[in-house]
Amino acid sequence: MDGCIFCKIIRGELPASVVYEDDRVLAFMDLVPINPGHTLVIPKGHYAYLTELPPEIGGEIFKIAMQVERAIRDSNTPCEGTNLLLANGKTAGQEVFHLHLHVIPRLSDDRSGFRFNSKYREQPDRQELDSLAEKIKAGM
Amino acid sequence: MDGCIFCKIIRGELPASVVYEDDRVLAFMDLVPINPGHTLVIPKGHYAYLTELPPEIGGEIFKIAMQVERAIRDSNTPCEGTNLLLANGKTAGQEVFHLHLHVIPRLSDDRSGFRFNSKYREQPDRQELDSLAEKIKAGM
Repeated sequence: MDGCIFCKIIRGELPASVVYEDDRVLAFMDLVPINPGHTLVIPKGHYAYLTELPPEIGGEIFKIAMQVERAIRDSNTPCEGTNLLLANGKTAGQEVFHLHLHVIPRLSDDRSGFRFNSKYREQPDRQELDSLAEKIKAGM
Repeated sequence: MDGCIFCKIIRGELPASVVYEDDRVLAFMDLVPINPGHTLVIPKGHYAYLTELPPEIGGEIFKIAMQVERAIRDSNTPCEGTNLLLANGKTAGQEVFHLHLHVIPRLSDDRSGFRFNSKYREQPDRQELDSLAEKIKAGM
């Protein structure tokens, strides 16, 4: 993808502070970190959305993210917890349409994190949950 | 783990609306969904934190989460985007200390999502990012 900034990073046309690279995966520092150490793990192939990503590449990305998470801790970068986050689609907060998994070191005073308001509600009844599960299960 | 509610679900001692199950992984509806369809994918083994999770199980969980994501869409459950989210540690929002990957259908009016305030700041300079990357790379 000519215009994709992550593809440009992969091709070496834009700078990046690289943490890990192999044939299929690249990991580099996020330019706008939530906290220092915030890293992005991306496939080298251009996949905009989750449904396009081959499952084996997805699994690989997650395994690299786990390694990055451990390496952040080992590097003594302040890190009291971590979020792994993938935003799939504009509504989910995706801004670069080349899929990426965030590895986010968290600090107790960072006032970040996932918001659970609005639709976060009383526990739905078991019947409702079972009915949803049946519908989703049918597609597995 | 005797007291772990997810271990109890795995052992059938607590009810769950199951979407998928195999020898190593279980997926079921979150009891307090952000939106209908919100699913948790968990390892059957009790791992509290990311550093304890065997990488191959992590990869498997992510692949199942990708399948769940597609199945949610195929089920016609309202879903304009999705977040995959893992909270590792209390500071990162973890509440059940049996690792779990959230698959969260997102809707444009759900007023949820990851907050990027506080430490979210001006772009750090390349030297700072390179220095962080070097330290993390050393642990990969």
